[in-house]
Amino acid sequence: MHVKAFQLMMENNALPCNVKFMIEGEEEVGSANLETFVKANIERLKSDVVLISDTGIIANDVPSITVGLRGLSYMEVEVTGPNRDLHSGIYGGAVANPINILCDMIASLHDEKRRITVKGFYDDVEEVSQEERALMNTAPFSIDEYKKHLDINDVLGEEGYTTLERTSIRPTLDVNGIWGGYIGEGAKTVLPSKAYAKISMRLVPNQDSKKISQLFQAHFESIAPSYVKVKVTDHHGGEAAITPTDSLAYKAAAAAMKETFGKDPIPMRSGGSIPIVTMFEKVLHTKSVLMGFGLDSDAIHSPNEHYGLFNYFKGIETIPYFFKYFTNFSK
Amino acid sequence: MHVKAFQLMMENNALPCNVKFMIEGEEEVGSANLETFVKANIERLKSDVVLISDTGIIANDVPSITVGLRGLSYMEVEVTGPNRDLHSGIYGGAVANPINILCDMIASLHDEKRRITVKGFYDDVEEVSQEERALMNTAPFSIDEYKKHLDINDVLGEEGYTTLERTSIRPTLDVNGIWGGYIGEGAKTVLPSKAYAKISMRLVPNQDSKKISQLFQAHFESIAPSYVKVKVTDHHGGEAAITPTDSLAYKAAAAAMKETFGKDPIPMRSGGSIPIVTMFEKVLHTKSVLMGFGLDSDAIHSPNEHYGLFNYFKGIETIPYFFKYFTNFSK
Repeated sequence: MHVKAFQLMMENNALPCNVKFMIEGEEEVGSANLETFVKANIERLKSDVVLISDTGIIANDVPSITVGLRGLSYMEVEVTGPNRDLHSGIYGGAVANPINILCDMIASLHDEKRRITVKGFYDDVEEVSQEERALMNTAPFSIDEYKKHLDINDVLGEEGYTTLERTSIRPTLDVNGIWGGYIGEGAKTVLPSKAYAKISMRLVPNQDSKKISQLFQAHFESIAPSYVKVKVTDHHGGEAAITPTDSLAYKAAAAAMKETFGKDPIPMRSGGSIPIVTMFEKVLHTKSVLMGFGLDSDAIHSPNEHYGLFNYFKGIETIPYFFKYFTNFSK
Repeated sequence: MHVKAFQLMMENNALPCNVKFMIEGEEEVGSANLETFVKANIERLKSDVVLISDTGIIANDVPSITVGLRGLSYMEVEVTGPNRDLHSGIYGGAVANPINILCDMIASLHDEKRRITVKGFYDDVEEVSQEERALMNTAPFSIDEYKKHLDINDVLGEEGYTTLERTSIRPTLDVNGIWGGYIGEGAKTVLPSKAYAKISMRLVPNQDSKKISQLFQAHFESIAPSYVKVKVTDHHGGEAAITPTDSLAYKAAAAAMKETFGKDPIPMRSGGSIPIVTMFEKVLHTKSVLMGFGLDSDAIHSPNEHYGLFNYFKGIETIPYFFKYFTNFSK
């Protein structure tokens, strides 16, 4: 299967371009030192494009290229009611309960169309063209299997968008954690002093993580009723990234995949984030293309993580074609 | 100060009535064995009235008698979204987040007038007469001191009622605890499978705790959207209790207090519950009168709990008068 690729490399006993390898061993712990290394080696790392193989394809017979990653703003909020925990029998009904108020505030962060109500949140959102949306929705996807897989009766998301769109080209807001009051076994009739939540937003290209964090803070403070105090903390964030489908790098990756899979790959956006993509762009001013060969069923970071031999060999076979086409298209 | 009371007892070297003492050592751990004991000793415990000194007065110069206690229904709810914790980047925005949904559901439990929306919740609520409400509001109470004491800018409660009314004659609903998702330090982008809350309702006379628990369960299940599953558990409850101000026991307690404090006591309702009151009524068919001498500032169950000598001696002085007047009025 991969014979053709070796032939390609061996015809001239050379690749058509130079290749620099970067092997990153800290990715799972946040790549804390990578930026320092990259900054110290800007000249040595100079390149025309960065190829990252940390993504997947839709299926073994449905090649795809990840053209977008979402950004992130991650906030923590603290709502304070009375200055100490109170007996809910003595004060309940007269003193605002910070858990109830926090629930009111969180509930108000989405409107009835499940759009996010943070003022200015959608101002910079890049609207994806009908063509790209149509192409995106040609990806094989069964809503019934999706629901069955997660054991849910219904999906829920922003009105007017499909599930594939909601998890890729649209920004979102989720409560990742909430706590307050008595959370042990049994019952305690406390009206607590404080309630907390961790709230994160996935961002799309053109939204600025720092700006969104500031908008969230201003909005959350503005909707806090007079009977509570709120404190908003910014945990961390990252910017969305995108590879335009009319870029040289995308065209080369698509041509390479067509060669080895026998059909055009589908450009896909992923809901997650790969922070080094924006770091390379910022420090090296170099764009990345995300051509990976894994499958959703690989169970990454889970028990029985695995990687198929088909995908392993397909990667070996395809990447030399990327070198070839990127070089050709650059001429 | 208490000389008169001793004189009263010593005049005839006898009290005007028989007295049975019950000293309960398990009150703070739920009186688990008291009902068993009372049931086994119904004949020995027979009496005309039960006098309980487990309450307080408004101030040392403002005597009061507790004439009402609220009941309780205490529920726990579990909201399940997807069958496992998910990555909020991959599924966020498309799969209902049980924390967000739980917040929506909790927010909907109060309307804009802070009335509880549980269907049928107010059906059996005893409406207190304008006269009793007016009397209740003669109690010295400073909303400014109340707010300052709790460090809050505003109070919050059911529209149309004062703070004193909200915490005594009106039923309430409070979230006593909430938890779900990641609640450790820092950030984790999880879309959790489950979210939980402990929700309790304080009830007023004529509301039935079991019925209210059932109404809550039916309501909470009915408002659960199709994309989550909910489980509602009933923790425990208790009935509200009331001492009519035209009862013999109340009149005797009021006369005794007038004798020793020099003014008529104010009938007060408390927001809390003393479950043995309803137990005595159920098992012994005997009503209780709640004449206690503590102060709010005693800091019960808190650091530096204390009890004033004035209150200690006032209790010794007043109770024999209760024996005297109850006996006289019973003749």
